[in-house]
Amino acid sequence: MINLYTWPTPNGRKISILLEELEISYNVIPININKNEQFSKEFSLISPSNKIPAIFDQEAKKNIFESGAIMLYLADKFKKFLPIKYHWQVIEWFMFQQTQVGPLLGQTHQFLFYNPGKSKFAEEKYKNYAKRIYQTLDLQLKKNEYLGFKYSIADIATWPWVARFERQRIDLEKYPNVLRWYKLIADRPAVIKGYNVVGTFEKIPLT
Amino acid sequence: MINLYTWPTPNGRKISILLEELEISYNVIPININKNEQFSKEFSLISPSNKIPAIFDQEAKKNIFESGAIMLYLADKFKKFLPIKYHWQVIEWFMFQQTQVGPLLGQTHQFLFYNPGKSKFAEEKYKNYAKRIYQTLDLQLKKNEYLGFKYSIADIATWPWVARFERQRIDLEKYPNVLRWYKLIADRPAVIKGYNVVGTFEKIPLT
Repeated sequence: MINLYTWPTPNGRKISILLEELEISYNVIPININKNEQFSKEFSLISPSNKIPAIFDQEAKKNIFESGAIMLYLADKFKKFLPIKYHWQVIEWFMFQQTQVGPLLGQTHQFLFYNPGKSKFAEEKYKNYAKRIYQTLDLQLKKNEYLGFKYSIADIATWPWVARFERQRIDLEKYPNVLRWYKLIADRPAVIKGYNVVGTFEKIPLT
Repeated sequence: MINLYTWPTPNGRKISILLEELEISYNVIPININKNEQFSKEFSLISPSNKIPAIFDQEAKKNIFESGAIMLYLADKFKKFLPIKYHWQVIEWFMFQQTQVGPLLGQTHQFLFYNPGKSKFAEEKYKNYAKRIYQTLDLQLKKNEYLGFKYSIADIATWPWVARFERQRIDLEKYPNVLRWYKLIADRPAVIKGYNVVGTFEKIPLT
């Protein structure tokens, strides 16, 4: 059994979707980031960077923080979604998610969605970052059905960020290969279930 | 033999320092990002996200892009700096570098160093992000000599970003454990050598 400390954000959804895909039973422990619960003393011991998600693996008696570390841990433990044959291709696109898709689209949300009008300069900057990211994804998904050939942790990590395309002011019609891939994954039962495990129900965009 | 496509940035230095630590021979191929060489058709084939660093492993006949993927690849290939005993602790702090230290301090450089005065709102935001990151690192380095107990890819990935503390307007004296760790690593012969493998010579700060 896994304890999942989470909240309905793209990083939180990576893990609930992966756990659903792995068909593992888990307890959801809500950490309400709107109430700054991630800064509690108790949660700091589980996640020293004060970020959700984090897990506690009851079997291994082990905490893991950082969504990327959790995904690598679960993929390694259950030997799924990180196929040996495509290992490095998956890792490349998984790391592209960790360093570009997540942080830069997260900052795009900060300026375009949470704080619009506060800085025209930053808004333009992040609109351009977002476009570059979607162009890169589109080119890869033109050549491959999934980011790392087969459905993998690279897709599971990236998809919840693309599901927030509206906050990024991205028109998915302009990135037809991303749109094809987005819809393909949005239809998966584990994704539908893992999307809403905590907080207020949210409809998956375009479904 | 490894071909290393790089430029003197924190992400580039991660790999040259790791290669020096591994005592592997490598060719340096400069990709001058001030001249936008990372967007050339030729380099796009090696690094589809148009970022340096990237490598070509002549032995395995394999390209790898994304600095985090390259570090995991080299640590796995040469079985060094990712000790089995501390594997997940290293991965946690390595991922903290990938998602926080790199992207957010990189954006801090954008607003405080490259574009000062363009957005007070963004400058305040990134000053706060930078402080939070240093606080988190300082707490971990108070408890441990290195980020993941032993000197590892987590330290090698993080150190070149901390070496840019001036651009982040961070006073390292306020983070005594980070300062202790920074100086310890700055003294390593492989770090001194790997710091300057391309471009104009730069002195390592505080040395």
